[in-house]
Amino acid sequence: MSAGSTLQLALDLAGTFVFGLNGALTAMDVENVDIVGVVVLAAITALGGGIIRDVLIGALPPAAFRDWRYLAVGGGAGIAAFVARRLWVRLQRSITMFDAAGLALFCVAGTTTAFAAHLGPFQSVVLGTITGVGGGTVRDVVIRRVPTVLSSGLYAIPAACGATLVAVALGFHFYSGGIAVAAAALCFSIRMVGVHFDLNVPASHPSENPTATGSRDRP
Amino acid sequence: MSAGSTLQLALDLAGTFVFGLNGALTAMDVENVDIVGVVVLAAITALGGGIIRDVLIGALPPAAFRDWRYLAVGGGAGIAAFVARRLWVRLQRSITMFDAAGLALFCVAGTTTAFAAHLGPFQSVVLGTITGVGGGTVRDVVIRRVPTVLSSGLYAIPAACGATLVAVALGFHFYSGGIAVAAAALCFSIRMVGVHFDLNVPASHPSENPTATGSRDRP
Amino acid sequence: MSAGSTLQLALDLAGTFVFGLNGALTAMDVENVDIVGVVVLAAITALGGGIIRDVLIGALPPAAFRDWRYLAVGGGAGIAAFVARRLWVRLQRSITMFDAAGLALFCVAGTTTAFAAHLGPFQSVVLGTITGVGGGTVRDVVIRRVPTVLSSGLYAIPAACGATLVAVALGFHFYSGGIAVAAAALCFSIRMVGVHFDLNVPASHPSENPTATGSRDRP
Repeated sequence: MSAGSTLQLALDLAGTFVFGLNGALTAMDVENVDIVGVVVLAAITALGGGIIRDVLIGALPPAAFRDWRYLAVGGGAGIAAFVARRLWVRLQRSITMFDAAGLALFCVAGTTTAFAAHLGPFQSVVLGTITGVGGGTVRDVVIRRVPTVLSSGLYAIPAACGATLVAVALGFHFYSGGIAVAAAALCFSIRMVGVHFDLNVPASHPSENPTATGSRDRP
Repeated sequence: MSAGSTLQLALDLAGTFVFGLNGALTAMDVENVDIVGVVVLAAITALGGGIIRDVLIGALPPAAFRDWRYLAVGGGAGIAAFVARRLWVRLQRSITMFDAAGLALFCVAGTTTAFAAHLGPFQSVVLGTITGVGGGTVRDVVIRRVPTVLSSGLYAIPAACGATLVAVALGFHFYSGGIAVAAAALCFSIRMVGVHFDLNVPASHPSENPTATGSRDRP
Repeated sequence: MSAGSTLQLALDLAGTFVFGLNGALTAMDVENVDIVGVVVLAAITALGGGIIRDVLIGALPPAAFRDWRYLAVGGGAGIAAFVARRLWVRLQRSITMFDAAGLALFCVAGTTTAFAAHLGPFQSVVLGTITGVGGGTVRDVVIRRVPTVLSSGLYAIPAACGATLVAVALGFHFYSGGIAVAAAALCFSIRMVGVHFDLNVPASHPSENPTATGSRDRP
């Protein structure tokens, strides 16, 4: 109702759409996934982080089920990506950009939601980060990929930075739409820098006995 | 207490048993899974969908933990399948049939439960479908298979059809035991047709770059 | 506030730390996991079982988010393991011992928490066992290993034995700190005996068609 909750709904739905596109584009790279699978993975990616957050703060049913628009936008993004597939396939980089945009929007929305539910600032940062990385992590587990959050330090960290800015602003009572935009931009920027960084310098932590993990291909 | 809730309990326990059998039979095809693993996977398959539904609608503890019979029936189905293993191994098709029966019973029970918890009809259909496909999906993730819901369009769609019939009947006040049976039969029939269809015409969506997903064997 | 809840907090934090160490050490054996991944997997292993329990009994937000010390101890164990890595790598056996200690502490704490939330004794045993095995199971799913609970009978069973002793003591009103210690020791002992047993006599349930499950290496 208030300006704050309208802003949050807009952020949530925008993040839902871009994460849904990302999830669908990722799904279409997986063998044997049909259109139902694409829509399901779009919805999981788009709504998973927020659902985990809402379950953990006890806001049940989660926003994704209280308001039909979330399911419609998340699943609709999957259909949109499927229909316009040939367009997206040419824009391989867009998968990563949509992911960074969703990460940015969700870490901000998740932190404000957790703080509004009276969780402490530290826990709000963690929940904001989970809101950002949760959907993609569930998607990766379902399609049997090692979740990005485990192998790329600059996936959780940008979300945590954005969430921290939001939590500090909320704790010291100077949170505003401008801060929200700044926090989202901070997260997005660090993430995109991280993507470039990873292309050149794998920030992995090589195991001394890599054979133990079997035949996983490096991405 | 009412006839409706008695019917729902009966549907839930019947679905729990057949999904438990299905989960146990699936588990026994996986290398290195012992009897504890068989019982655990039977319970996950049998109770996972309903637990996810109950968590999402905030009905906590979930029915599976409010009433000890769910855990007993789900785990007991695992023991029954384990003990009579040689019988079941000969009936390979029974795995698929039990899965379709559980899917049918759970999509009906899940939709009515969600509707009774005051979720909108669209969300009730989604939750009914999740109740149907959730347990098997969690089971597949745990044993590292690509979930059926992603690769077979005619797994989620039958459940969604049955759930839609139930939601329409509930919304227009003509829901009855007969409608429940019809919706379950609708779901079961579409699913079994889908199984035959898949045998002949793989409805997959082949990726243009299948090598990206590594060495996963086609089923 | 009472002695009972202080004991429970101490058990929970001790279990959180040892499970966090175990999760971090496991994570460092996985290729490509960086320090963020190590901390995330430490926290998942340490807090996953308790979070699942708290969600299922409806105690939201979970203890792991109500009290910042859980997140700090779980994540801190990850950092401690990462920093002192070379020390731990030499102590390969310590991974298993920490896991058994966490299992013992968590099955006791989980059963008392579930019982205090008015669940029946049977369900309390199941939830106590889930509290013990849940975090490691989620960790294994995320890093794409077959969960120990499925392939090693003497992983869930020790937890269930400890949980049963606690539930019986609670049900017959003779629960005490001594019983808690005895139940934890019972779980720990059976688990460690099970580890030795598994080294010599694989308690697995070999499939008649092992090729169906692909190229998974036997441990």
